[in-house]
Amino acid sequence: MDMATVNALPYEDFVNLLGNVVEKCPIITAAVWSGRPFLNFAALEAAISEFIDALPESGKEGVLRCHPDLAGRDLRGGTLTRESREEQTGAGMDALTSAEASRVTRLNEEYKERFGFPFVICARLSDKVTVLRQLSERRRNERAVERARAVEEVKKICRLRLQALVRDDAQNKL
Amino acid sequence: MDMATVNALPYEDFVNLLGNVVEKCPIITAAVWSGRPFLNFAALEAAISEFIDALPESGKEGVLRCHPDLAGRDLRGGTLTRESREEQTGAGMDALTSAEASRVTRLNEEYKERFGFPFVICARLSDKVTVLRQLSERRRNERAVERARAVEEVKKICRLRLQALVRDDAQNKL
Repeated sequence: MDMATVNALPYEDFVNLLGNVVEKCPIITAAVWSGRPFLNFAALEAAISEFIDALPESGKEGVLRCHPDLAGRDLRGGTLTRESREEQTGAGMDALTSAEASRVTRLNEEYKERFGFPFVICARLSDKVTVLRQLSERRRNERAVERARAVEEVKKICRLRLQALVRDDAQNKL
Repeated sequence: MDMATVNALPYEDFVNLLGNVVEKCPIITAAVWSGRPFLNFAALEAAISEFIDALPESGKEGVLRCHPDLAGRDLRGGTLTRESREEQTGAGMDALTSAEASRVTRLNEEYKERFGFPFVICARLSDKVTVLRQLSERRRNERAVERARAVEEVKKICRLRLQALVRDDAQNKL
């Protein structure tokens, strides 16, 4: 869909289309609708990023807590959102060996115990080895550093989800 | 559930339990988890209200846009959240006469056209006659007045949804 069409959508259609570009946070999409029309893809993406950046730290943690565990019970139980399922399976999270699965579960629990939010990574830009290494490394970060890092991953996920739905003119010109 | 138990919940259980006290905005529940432990029910409720109040105006509109129409296509199509369905049917929104249903549809459209968000009212505290009168009256409000009024309704809905899940000690003492 091109930006002119997106800009013309009533809020209900806008939220139906883009409501999950930030996982389980349709409020963010619904909020940025107030700022339409968007000049281009980058302006829409920037509006979402700015909304997230303006949230209090608790709100940023809230965004992170709306994300599922990687290779967690939602993947096993089939209760991931469509977007998350595609991202996690694309990164091989549904094809871990038994030893890898145990390790991810243990590291996820350690991570959540330490930070109070789940490990978030843009799985589409990763593979199994990278995800496991990042999870292992990032769990040692300081809390504020890791929160900021995780929010950057949310924005990467958001960009790719947006690009799957809205034509990114800048990208097409490359 | 009592507050001591609520305060001891990991964020995942907290969000699973309370994630829809503000309609389709689990980020709000997930954010206030950062502020636990809560002294009592009122403190938890206040944390949610304060989070909403601190949102930019676009964010408050985003909260409103996450709400379904009253007596709209989600009610007819069976796609309301459980909480909304119970509230709307309790207020008789599933038992409108054909003339009433047409009137609600027309007024909802007028309201959304004027404000860019749906008419929100705490249906549990209303009946069919009150809902219809409020919808008719409030659609003439100024935008900022109506946005503030609608946010107050969100908070009333939130309080009643919370009270269905968490013991309100103050209420029990009455």
